[in-house]
Amino acid sequence: MADSVFTKIIKGEIPSHKIYEDDKTFAFLDIHPKTNGHVLVVPKRQVDEFQDLPDDDYIALMQTVKKVARRLKEVYPDKRIGLKVFGLDVPHVHIHVFPFGSIEEYLNTPDMSAEPDNQKLAEIAQKLAF
Amino acid sequence: MADSVFTKIIKGEIPSHKIYEDDKTFAFLDIHPKTNGHVLVVPKRQVDEFQDLPDDDYIALMQTVKKVARRLKEVYPDKRIGLKVFGLDVPHVHIHVFPFGSIEEYLNTPDMSAEPDNQKLAEIAQKLAF
Repeated sequence: MADSVFTKIIKGEIPSHKIYEDDKTFAFLDIHPKTNGHVLVVPKRQVDEFQDLPDDDYIALMQTVKKVARRLKEVYPDKRIGLKVFGLDVPHVHIHVFPFGSIEEYLNTPDMSAEPDNQKLAEIAQKLAF
Repeated sequence: MADSVFTKIIKGEIPSHKIYEDDKTFAFLDIHPKTNGHVLVVPKRQVDEFQDLPDDDYIALMQTVKKVARRLKEVYPDKRIGLKVFGLDVPHVHIHVFPFGSIEEYLNTPDMSAEPDNQKLAEIAQKLAF
């Protein structure tokens, strides 16, 4: 199986705005964020669909989702934390975790062709990393 | 704290199309489904935001999400399984778990004022329950 774009990010072959890492999971900023603080949480094990993850990888993934959500709430205390799993884009489980303040922000579909604002992303990553 | 609509469902005070129950979690059909098989998974502990759940309730919730997703995949093998946590509607954690076959189905916003099709929901619940 070829490495997914997320496996390449985990290996450091593609740069990312990293927030958190442990032995089973990796969290970094989405370069096309719905809102400031939009994080992707991925398992290091490259599996397409979340329900196919072995239990230990799945539980580790969800524990990281909770940690990231608590960290986001500290930095954005007025927001709620949304989750989405969609996954038609990259065949490697990834959970979107993002602060939002309204239905519009939750539903916001970013322009995927826009050039990432890496300076802004780096500033947010520095605030969020733990 | 007053009982949420989901606590009333768990207690059986409001009827629901139940799919699964264990000591910490409860899963039932959304009465305004995005797609056939749209399930809500809730913790029995009434907490507003998922990241505030104690670890044992949170892990139990996520394990039920995985079980429901695997069950949905058995019944709808051609679909992917989507997750959403939004939560502005009811202040009791609930995770949307639903099969979808396209972006349009994932984004589908049901008419919340429509009368639930309880006969169809009962048929789906019978197929899905485990």
